Amino acid sequence: MSRPTVVLGGTGPEGFGLALRWARAGETVIIGSRDAKRAQDAAQKIKERVGPRANVSGEENSAACVASDLLVLTIPFEGHANLLKQLKPAIRAGSILIDATVPLAASVGGRASRTLGVWQGSAAQQAAELVPKGVSVVAAFQNTSAEVLNGDEPVECDVIVCSDDPHASQAAAELAAKIPGVRAIDGGKLENARILEHITALLIGMNLRHKGHSGIRITGLPSAAYRQA
Amino acid sequence: MSRPTVVLGGTGPEGFGLALRWARAGETVIIGSRDAKRAQDAAQKIKERVGPRANVSGEENSAACVASDLLVLTIPFEGHANLLKQLKPAIRAGSILIDATVPLAASVGGRASRTLGVWQGSAAQQAAELVPKGVSVVAAFQNTSAEVLNGDEPVECDVIVCSDDPHASQAAAELAAKIPGVRAIDGGKLENARILEHITALLIGMNLRHKGHSGIRITGLPSAAYRQA
Repeated sequence: MSRPTVVLGGTGPEGFGLALRWARAGETVIIGSRDAKRAQDAAQKIKERVGPRANVSGEENSAACVASDLLVLTIPFEGHANLLKQLKPAIRAGSILIDATVPLAASVGGRASRTLGVWQGSAAQQAAELVPKGVSVVAAFQNTSAEVLNGDEPVECDVIVCSDDPHASQAAAELAAKIPGVRAIDGGKLENARILEHITALLIGMNLRHKGHSGIRITGLPSAAYRQA
Repeated sequence: MSRPTVVLGGTGPEGFGLALRWARAGETVIIGSRDAKRAQDAAQKIKERVGPRANVSGEENSAACVASDLLVLTIPFEGHANLLKQLKPAIRAGSILIDATVPLAASVGGRASRTLGVWQGSAAQQAAELVPKGVSVVAAFQNTSAEVLNGDEPVECDVIVCSDDPHASQAAAELAAKIPGVRAIDGGKLENARILEHITALLIGMNLRHKGHSGIRITGLPSAAYRQA
């Protein structure tokens, strides 16, 4: 059996959509939330959509961290640093934290089509500074539309994974490739997370301007560069 | 007859590739270079590839600016500000300047997979500060691979155009859509140029890592959002 995937903030639209897709792919998923009851309700909703055999449960965020070493963080930027500080004692040594957070200016009352400058370079690099030593951070899943993830169609979006730990990049790429339509691509070191985060702001602006649920594809790489189901 | 398209720095790989594609599409193209002779040689090379009826000529950069009000700037970032200062008296009132420049760290001896921070926000916004009053700047063509443009296959890349002047965005989108394979998409205001410039650094990193000539596609928008040939 594969290790559980913990989706921290998994009651929000992006996290719920990812949890839904992974549950459908047969993964064991633990939804984390500030409120254990809300997490369990979200898990129940996923079971209703995927079927009773779906391996999905809900826990308070800290309890969820204790249950696995594969964590996906999907929360609004305004809660990012505080949640990571709070979870620090709960995150297991050797864990992989996949950060999908985007520092949208909406976090401070600005536009969702602009990002804030983060001193470390990106939200994911902020995460890397806040996790316990020996935990590897990967930036990924910033650009997959929550609306599309919550639907039933293939997700027409490539997931670029950036990390300083190739083993962690690979774990994130494997998770990404479980979602129909998604192709995972190695995007290099964690410092490139800033570019993935900026792309989200561009896509949100396009969604507002053109009324769509946009994603990106990378063209022109040899087939070995793409990992897909 | 359509107005000529001036490609400033058109002897470099990106500018030459764009000039080649536009000449093939039947556009009148003027290649600009510091050296009129090099510009004329490049024009001759394009004629050899496209055929003797290709409407392409070469001029020194300032002379090229005088000849049209539709300018495309494709030079390494290290020469960007100086060239624009030099061209200021030559650029005609009401011109459109399409800036494809990316502030790669390679300009100062760093990596081509990283960008420099530009005080104005992006190279294109630096250009907007340096052109004469009443000249509209559009950011576009940062992400089209020079290698692919210089070939004969369709260019599998969307061109995102960003400008504060919708009329200028439209002119750039029309030019983009003349290149087989390219779709033009409105990416909003000029301030978003920074995102397009960052994407280039990401694509260059992928090209180095995966040995390819990458580009991007935007998925999930209604068909009216895409302009293509």
